[in-house]
Amino acid sequence: MRADDPVPIDFWFTVGSTYTYLAAMRLPEVSRATGVAFRWRPFRLLTILQEMKHVPFADKPAKSAYMWRDIERRAALYGVRWAGPPRYPLADSGIPNRIATLAALEGWCEGYVRAAYEGWFLQHENPDEPANIERSLAQVGQDAGRVLALADGPAIHEALKQSTDAARAVGIFGSPCFVTRGELFWGDDRLEDALAWHRRGTLAHEATIDARAGR
Amino acid sequence: MRADDPVPIDFWFTVGSTYTYLAAMRLPEVSRATGVAFRWRPFRLLTILQEMKHVPFADKPAKSAYMWRDIERRAALYGVRWAGPPRYPLADSGIPNRIATLAALEGWCEGYVRAAYEGWFLQHENPDEPANIERSLAQVGQDAGRVLALADGPAIHEALKQSTDAARAVGIFGSPCFVTRGELFWGDDRLEDALAWHRRGTLAHEATIDARAGR
Repeated sequence: MRADDPVPIDFWFTVGSTYTYLAAMRLPEVSRATGVAFRWRPFRLLTILQEMKHVPFADKPAKSAYMWRDIERRAALYGVRWAGPPRYPLADSGIPNRIATLAALEGWCEGYVRAAYEGWFLQHENPDEPANIERSLAQVGQDAGRVLALADGPAIHEALKQSTDAARAVGIFGSPCFVTRGELFWGDDRLEDALAWHRRGTLAHEATIDARAGR
Repeated sequence: MRADDPVPIDFWFTVGSTYTYLAAMRLPEVSRATGVAFRWRPFRLLTILQEMKHVPFADKPAKSAYMWRDIERRAALYGVRWAGPPRYPLADSGIPNRIATLAALEGWCEGYVRAAYEGWFLQHENPDEPANIERSLAQVGQDAGRVLALADGPAIHEALKQSTDAARAVGIFGSPCFVTRGELFWGDDRLEDALAWHRRGTLAHEATIDARAGR
């Protein structure tokens, strides 16, 4: 067993990103197994994508089909539940990301985001729709009326804008991302790389060293 | 030691793709270590990207900066040489991919493609430029005059078009890709997944199982 690591890895994410489902489901177990904490930092990816002239997945059918199959295979690898592709993209990713921003300020971000993703991927209720919002907030013991009033207010709009500015300043252009020791790792599939870098400042990790030793 | 596997994994690639450098450098050692062969299948990615309304990396500075750093980190992880980011993109990816197409038909594709990538990433001579073409062909014992005459002819143009059609039909939208048992894996970082699927029809592989057992 490792001693708990006092320095967290920054987990930057936007609710509405597909691969973020895998990361959100994996992080608690990874944290328990490694002793490394993650700081959940919501931002608004759509703002950055629009600046990049991003072409939505809807215009890329082959890439989209691959993405769902890749997520399905990796969910099975990780023991993460899978109920077929959910509806995508969200009609308004602003709402859940403002709720997540409020939640991060109040200390219930991880629980809310995991509940929102479970509702989206397992119940197929999108996180920008009332059914998901009500269920997710109830799961973390939050009053929907209070939360929505605050999440729609100017302070949270501004906080989400500032976190998006901070994400852009770090070089972030996708979700999820992990940042540790000034290094950026993009994608759920870079989580192990981020952990290795966090611990040792290099990418080599035990499994890879074993693999390269010829196993 | 495993017995040699008589069924190869299809390695689909385009010369001009950046991450393909890592795969092209890794495959011979991976093949020796696993007994799995790879069938090198060049195609013209640009054709497919244009159909997808692809936005070039030049318009995505944050993503581009990340890509080079990611490749640098992963090259160190794999023991692949790195000499800083090469010039990118190629001015004309048609030339090296037609040479690779001819090479695949004549049986010297792997050697040529690895030489072209080494010239590009280590000497910073682009694979669509005479210095790289002459050096790469000399390294695999081919006469540049003969090769360029054939590679510019209608048969090779048609063969590259047909291989690109075949790649599209498999669902390919990027390079490198690995295809085994009807499953598509996109990216050098999915090579281990492709190997696991090739052997067992599932993504779980030894290292992952070890990791999930709590190491």
